[in-house]
Amino acid sequence: MAAKATLLDIATKLNITTSTVSRALNDNPRISKATKKAVLKAAKELNYQPNNIAAALRRGKSHLLGVIVPTADRAFFSSVIRGIEEISNKLNYQVIICQSYDDYDKEVETINALTNARVDGIIVSISKKTVNTDHFQKAIDKGIPVILFDRTSEKLNVNQVMIDDYRGAYEVVSHLIDQGCKRIAHFTSPVKISIYKERLRGYVDALENHGIPYDEDLVVESNLQLEDGRISMQKLLDKKISVDAVFSSSDYAAMGAMQILKEKNIKIPEEVALAGFANEPFTSFTDPTLTTVDQLSLDMGHATAEMFFKQLNDSENGHSKVQKTILKPKLIIRQTSLRKKNIK
Amino acid sequence: MAAKATLLDIATKLNITTSTVSRALNDNPRISKATKKAVLKAAKELNYQPNNIAAALRRGKSHLLGVIVPTADRAFFSSVIRGIEEISNKLNYQVIICQSYDDYDKEVETINALTNARVDGIIVSISKKTVNTDHFQKAIDKGIPVILFDRTSEKLNVNQVMIDDYRGAYEVVSHLIDQGCKRIAHFTSPVKISIYKERLRGYVDALENHGIPYDEDLVVESNLQLEDGRISMQKLLDKKISVDAVFSSSDYAAMGAMQILKEKNIKIPEEVALAGFANEPFTSFTDPTLTTVDQLSLDMGHATAEMFFKQLNDSENGHSKVQKTILKPKLIIRQTSLRKKNIK
Repeated sequence: MAAKATLLDIATKLNITTSTVSRALNDNPRISKATKKAVLKAAKELNYQPNNIAAALRRGKSHLLGVIVPTADRAFFSSVIRGIEEISNKLNYQVIICQSYDDYDKEVETINALTNARVDGIIVSISKKTVNTDHFQKAIDKGIPVILFDRTSEKLNVNQVMIDDYRGAYEVVSHLIDQGCKRIAHFTSPVKISIYKERLRGYVDALENHGIPYDEDLVVESNLQLEDGRISMQKLLDKKISVDAVFSSSDYAAMGAMQILKEKNIKIPEEVALAGFANEPFTSFTDPTLTTVDQLSLDMGHATAEMFFKQLNDSENGHSKVQKTILKPKLIIRQTSLRKKNIK
Repeated sequence: MAAKATLLDIATKLNITTSTVSRALNDNPRISKATKKAVLKAAKELNYQPNNIAAALRRGKSHLLGVIVPTADRAFFSSVIRGIEEISNKLNYQVIICQSYDDYDKEVETINALTNARVDGIIVSISKKTVNTDHFQKAIDKGIPVILFDRTSEKLNVNQVMIDDYRGAYEVVSHLIDQGCKRIAHFTSPVKISIYKERLRGYVDALENHGIPYDEDLVVESNLQLEDGRISMQKLLDKKISVDAVFSSSDYAAMGAMQILKEKNIKIPEEVALAGFANEPFTSFTDPTLTTVDQLSLDMGHATAEMFFKQLNDSENGHSKVQKTILKPKLIIRQTSLRKKNIK
């Protein structure tokens, strides 16, 4: 049998809000006769059974959805938030955002802030410096659903939406090899959260599967900011380590490498090709433009918000299976890696 | 007589939170004897009289401060928010952010969302499409202080923090003239909110005071996004209007102009100099790097938050004079405008 239809299904079908659907079903005088008729018709067609999300929406909820990100000014996070808002606003939910600034204490405080604000759920991308997940568990224990995206944790048994970082890295490194690169450096973070581990794993596997030996001298650790990229590139040049490409786990560090190469008059991509990760907007403004990996942040926002509303619905229906969604990132080929002009 | 000392003054002096000060003064057992002694000493030295911010902080406040911005991903707004958080966190306040996406309806909803979240105050930069200020007045009438920054409104009798956009524009145009430019185009917005009006006024006055005639053919209106800048620059070239510089009211539109000039092999800054406004991070990554105007966004965040806490304090003391703070922006000279090499 098909899954039970929800208020959300009716709302989506008619392109109206769930609260309008709910009011229509409750014969609220503020709703027009035409709308009531359309809602009843759709409810019948979809075999809608009450006692699901409608109940959740009626039961004195705040209609606030909290989102915690390290910083909202990174294109990736702001675009995920935009995706979350697109879904939430349709369902009459307002999004409020807190920033952890990648600080553990601040993250704990934002959980308290959002609990005080009486949010109906919290969507989080975990701070790099988070040492435990008790604060999230506390919110869950209070009945506030927590959903993780991108920077997730295995310690919490909650819904998660991730990007396939391994695949993103594998594809970009394979592309560099395809362009004739054989000595590919990798800029990574010493903080071994899953995104960096997965990208490193994708880099290693792509080399291996193309018969290129892994050389640990080519892997440089840093905080992956612009200045770190400059230092990492300078380090490779100073040590006279032969390099014909850099795959950086961050666009900012790739930009730092680009600055050093330009200052030394080393030709990009002919002598050293470059690729970043995240598709920050500035990557299309640099000269040459930067090859990178797009993380489908808007899709990730949609998937995360949909997961929250599904969970809200499911918990009303008494079932609550934890789910993981993994999205496939997209390789964006630009000037810094195009060594063969006749690219397919 | 000096202004009454507040809990905040004591907290700042001792570099502790106001709630610690408050607890110390109330002989709370959670506070150490040493801290209590230090607080009482500071209270005496500063001639502290109770019945002010302490009362506000005690009286069941949520300790949440709401911030509404058009989008949190613009460097300017995210940096103002960072400044607001730096002050607020010291005072045990948490910041929650909503985005209006420059949409009037969305802005009205964010006010409702923050009211539902029981914030103690709302700091706003108004959406470009806001047609009236009733929604803000409603919040004020409910006793929630509203403070405006950057995109402000004369219709509301509230505290405001602004940047001197006139001066920023005046200085950047004077600099272009000083570099030998005489035919300076200006990219502006048809939306006549004060920031664009003031920048246009600064442009016009700088020309006039340097004896350069104003030519309306040189003023191009658009939404000031990257693509708009491309179109505006192309328009000037197509019409064969003589131009030796562009001052754009937005960095993004300046970037669009840069792309067109590079595509046409027009030399920057020798043939056409460029300057933007806002000091977006990408402006130091472009080639050549972009001259722009920094809006001291962190300072603006500090000033706005301090105004909120002062207002909280003042209203407890029964006085409430509305205040305007105007900050002076900073000209950032980079490669796109440096035509004279021996710049002082």
